[in-house]
Amino acid sequence: MRVKLASSYGFCFGVKRAIKIAEGYHNSSTMGPLIHNQNEIDRLKNDYNVGLYNSLSDVKPKDTVIIRTHGIPKNDLKELRQKDAKVINATCPFVTTPQQIVKKMSEENYSILIFGDENHPEVQGVKSYGKDTDDVHVVLCKDDLEKINFKYDKIATVAQTTRKKEIYLEIVNALILKNKEVRVFNTICDATFENQDAARELSKEVDVMIVIGGKNSSNTKQLHSICLENCEDSFLIENIEELDISWLKNKTLCGITAGASTPDWIIQQVVTKIENV
Amino acid sequence: MRVKLASSYGFCFGVKRAIKIAEGYHNSSTMGPLIHNQNEIDRLKNDYNVGLYNSLSDVKPKDTVIIRTHGIPKNDLKELRQKDAKVINATCPFVTTPQQIVKKMSEENYSILIFGDENHPEVQGVKSYGKDTDDVHVVLCKDDLEKINFKYDKIATVAQTTRKKEIYLEIVNALILKNKEVRVFNTICDATFENQDAARELSKEVDVMIVIGGKNSSNTKQLHSICLENCEDSFLIENIEELDISWLKNKTLCGITAGASTPDWIIQQVVTKIENV
Repeated sequence: MRVKLASSYGFCFGVKRAIKIAEGYHNSSTMGPLIHNQNEIDRLKNDYNVGLYNSLSDVKPKDTVIIRTHGIPKNDLKELRQKDAKVINATCPFVTTPQQIVKKMSEENYSILIFGDENHPEVQGVKSYGKDTDDVHVVLCKDDLEKINFKYDKIATVAQTTRKKEIYLEIVNALILKNKEVRVFNTICDATFENQDAARELSKEVDVMIVIGGKNSSNTKQLHSICLENCEDSFLIENIEELDISWLKNKTLCGITAGASTPDWIIQQVVTKIENV
Repeated sequence: MRVKLASSYGFCFGVKRAIKIAEGYHNSSTMGPLIHNQNEIDRLKNDYNVGLYNSLSDVKPKDTVIIRTHGIPKNDLKELRQKDAKVINATCPFVTTPQQIVKKMSEENYSILIFGDENHPEVQGVKSYGKDTDDVHVVLCKDDLEKINFKYDKIATVAQTTRKKEIYLEIVNALILKNKEVRVFNTICDATFENQDAARELSKEVDVMIVIGGKNSSNTKQLHSICLENCEDSFLIENIEELDISWLKNKTLCGITAGASTPDWIIQQVVTKIENV
């Protein structure tokens, strides 16, 4: 049957780049999983002997250690270097930017506000670049601002790359009303939303939609829910084994999209199978 | 009858300060009218011989010239000094702030955006402090942004002191979505809105409301319209002569507020007359 891929799907620029970097360092290890996809982690291990460290204490001298797209806290990077590891930095450039902004702005005596999830590795990394970490604050919504005491009335703000702009603006607006100067850095990356916009468009024109990605992946679940708004026959699968051919019965055009952690080779398997139905 | 004044009314801090400064300089002249109220201008002339210049060409050497709250363009100030006039600066400190911000930010290679009325003297003054006036842009609403080509992707923004915060946020939000960095300085002064908020509250609890101010003054007309929302017997007068005692018939509590250009002595005349009804 006919298949149409979303105009944007799957890996973002930063993840594609990090995987390419990892493929160039045989026998290295990534510091934390490079991607939320076990199949891809297995492929890197099998094809390139790229292993996985879950803790700094796993690292031995002369190890080649790859920093993943999220980046790592400043002190962890220092510790890696002190251990005499060879550090390969695959931090996404869009994550390096807020790290450097937080460093510079806190040196210039701005209070720092990060819009994001305090427990997310990207945010932990960005936060660590503040000069005075007591004055680097993390919020998820504007109501969270109430609990914060900023040291200065000059605030610099950055956002976790995958956050929604609308909520960032709500937070920033609340700050502008209460502070002399708010220095707003737009560090949100469009990639996530490009996949969503493309899924929304495609799901309007097809009669069945397959979303490929982890069932626990929040961005994949969001893609699925967007598709369901326009196409009730939208199905979420993790891999080709989960594809049920009966879904395609009496359909003419199948749309396909994939979450940000879904490798191309998994998507290609699904595309080929459906094309041959 | 009983009279209750709004908790905030009449002159703002900057105007009170400018008048006090003018009273300290007998035989001086203000550069443009100090206030939009002919009675007050007459009083300054009669009691302190403070005159009025409408153009720089009126100024003679050794003249004492008072800069009004709005400030003046940088080059006009230079010209005054070149004419060997004694310059007394009564620019409102809340207006000096955006002037200095525009100067500093344009020196640091930010494109400048001013939210305000291009033809207002305050905005003309603030704008003149830009290093490169071609890259200092003035808008009244977010739609005005479409016609602008900023030189840089780093924008610094200030607002005319009397503008509405809600519209400033709309403009700033549009900029944040399209630029790497937006440095938002909150230069809006609360005084106008304090008078409005106080008029709103007071008009809810009285049975007749008198608004004192110029019939052409936009802030006075706005006070009147706010009062009418809550109290249908709300009347706008310019001075005591316009007060119609019949308005107070069968009323028990009269609320009073005044526009930002209404001097206290005019308000006091009205208060005394109504108290004695």
